[in-house]
Amino acid sequence: MAYLNENYLKLQAGYLFPEIARRVREFCEKNPKAAKRLIRCGIGDVTEPLPQAAIKAIKRAADELGHRETFRGYGPEQGYEFLRSAIAQNDFRDRKVDIAPDEIFVSDGSKCDCGFILDILGDQNKVAITDPVYPVYVDTNVMAGHTGAARKDGSYEGVVYLPCTAENNFVPAPPKEHVDLVYLCFQCAVEFRSFSKIGGFTGVRCGFTVMPKRLLARTESGKKLPLHPLWHRRWSTKANSVSYPVQRAAEALYSDEGRKQCRALIEHYMGNAKILREACEKIGLDVYGGTNAPYIWIRAPKGLTSWQMFDRMLCEINVVVTPGAGFGAQGEGYVRISAFNSRENAEEVARRLKELK
Amino acid sequence: MAYLNENYLKLQAGYLFPEIARRVREFCEKNPKAAKRLIRCGIGDVTEPLPQAAIKAIKRAADELGHRETFRGYGPEQGYEFLRSAIAQNDFRDRKVDIAPDEIFVSDGSKCDCGFILDILGDQNKVAITDPVYPVYVDTNVMAGHTGAARKDGSYEGVVYLPCTAENNFVPAPPKEHVDLVYLCFQCAVEFRSFSKIGGFTGVRCGFTVMPKRLLARTESGKKLPLHPLWHRRWSTKANSVSYPVQRAAEALYSDEGRKQCRALIEHYMGNAKILREACEKIGLDVYGGTNAPYIWIRAPKGLTSWQMFDRMLCEINVVVTPGAGFGAQGEGYVRISAFNSRENAEEVARRLKELK
Repeated sequence: MAYLNENYLKLQAGYLFPEIARRVREFCEKNPKAAKRLIRCGIGDVTEPLPQAAIKAIKRAADELGHRETFRGYGPEQGYEFLRSAIAQNDFRDRKVDIAPDEIFVSDGSKCDCGFILDILGDQNKVAITDPVYPVYVDTNVMAGHTGAARKDGSYEGVVYLPCTAENNFVPAPPKEHVDLVYLCFQCAVEFRSFSKIGGFTGVRCGFTVMPKRLLARTESGKKLPLHPLWHRRWSTKANSVSYPVQRAAEALYSDEGRKQCRALIEHYMGNAKILREACEKIGLDVYGGTNAPYIWIRAPKGLTSWQMFDRMLCEINVVVTPGAGFGAQGEGYVRISAFNSRENAEEVARRLKELK
Repeated sequence: MAYLNENYLKLQAGYLFPEIARRVREFCEKNPKAAKRLIRCGIGDVTEPLPQAAIKAIKRAADELGHRETFRGYGPEQGYEFLRSAIAQNDFRDRKVDIAPDEIFVSDGSKCDCGFILDILGDQNKVAITDPVYPVYVDTNVMAGHTGAARKDGSYEGVVYLPCTAENNFVPAPPKEHVDLVYLCFQCAVEFRSFSKIGGFTGVRCGFTVMPKRLLARTESGKKLPLHPLWHRRWSTKANSVSYPVQRAAEALYSDEGRKQCRALIEHYMGNAKILREACEKIGLDVYGGTNAPYIWIRAPKGLTSWQMFDRMLCEINVVVTPGAGFGAQGEGYVRISAFNSRENAEEVARRLKELK
């Protein structure tokens, strides 16, 4: 009989979003009437139609696959040159950042890439992670055996947490102790990007990693080697790039038409964020965010915990949010409202917030 | 500075297929005239148009994404119910194998899955692998630190190799020493499958794993636990399933129209295999395979090595094959001819084989 990876047994019950889904399902089964007026502002999933430029590109590519002359089988494991060039040019070179197409690795999303990166890093790295944070950063390290057991507050032994609090304006000081690896949502060395939100691609699946060739890592004996060849090899051996029509769709987001449609999407979601943000402020809540990203963080009033506030909003106004504690111990006492929704729903949530007791 | 995963440094230069690509590129640059008549029978990549059923499904799904009412964002991480059900029903239940839809995990291909499976298995497993074999089985274990250094013949210390030779009719005896994990291309417990060849999906990217819930693995302390929840959790945390149009395309392969088109593809490629097999036999080569899968293995004559035979076929008749040694030490002295090609090319290769000196 094979041995299993016991690090998985350290994981806290359920990844955050499946756990939310479970609670909501239970509530809806018990309250079928309230279920009908439920508005989901939990998971940051887009709701608006895919840009027409992307749809046209998918259909054109599907047609190409229907003819011998234009059929394509296996693509380059790291992604097609046409997409890697478009990304390097539009997202980096046009902004005076020197990134070459072969430093771009096309994937089916950032969630995977965040896990994959640990493939090429050493197990002896001391890891620092901001708190609260995207749970995938923590959980993939747990799975890889880079942590000890879980504590009561959901944090793990062996990880250096960098608390983001209202007191430090959510920008933590650098860690005092030595660390080898830091996960940040800004100022990156290896950069994980996706088209999920900007192009409405959460169901289409496309993202990429930027792995600059000048980035070095060390061996136990102190030798310094570039990570790029390891990452390249990882993709050659463990992947076959992304569906051809999907890569064409991502490319189309960089066309004039695609850009215009992406901009309209961003304006839509950020417009929702403004509506929700102002509604929260109007009822006297402490509100953070919602200006640079379409997520609004509110501090739960009256010393409620994150999950208490989650349940209250679910039961009283039938709005699903995300408990801040799910993103880390420092998220306790907050909930996150996602502005990824229709305008109609955002306005309805804004109205319902006034009914919150 | 971060530590890197030093196991990557043990890997032999270049994954097999990139190395073939390099040699072919070099040959073509030096021999532009011969380059024009080059026929590729190396990598097993499909050449025929995608089934129309799949194309229609992709385009229909792309159109759905263009409307608010039918838009879909994140899908279930393990794949949509519609596809998991279609697979469980058509590939298993209809054949009297009791597999439930939630034992099917939809991925973007088997290559990835073969690597991913090591995520949930313990590092202390003693691994047995047939030889010759798909290099990904070996390389992913090297990357995960489950082997020692590489030997001169390309094999790795610490792996138990099961030699498949003409003498044992390519069916190895079970290993004599104790092993915890065996990679087989038949008789499976965890099963890796893909639509790459059957549906011409090498560029579309879709596959799946079958992880039966009754399959157990052990902890160091001897406890027996099902692997299914670990695999499920791995997908929840590290994946977001496969592009929605792609899942619809895979589903369409199970429709009446899709089945008919897949059958036609199989007949086409197996027809090529017959032509190539007979051509090899006619010139007196020792020929294996090509009856159940569209790959023909031939023993290199006159004691030539795999790479010598590869170079000879490249230079003399401008046909690219795969050196058997690339699949393991026991593949030395063989080359593999892929029948994934147009009928015209298969017939031309059959003609050229007669010119081989």
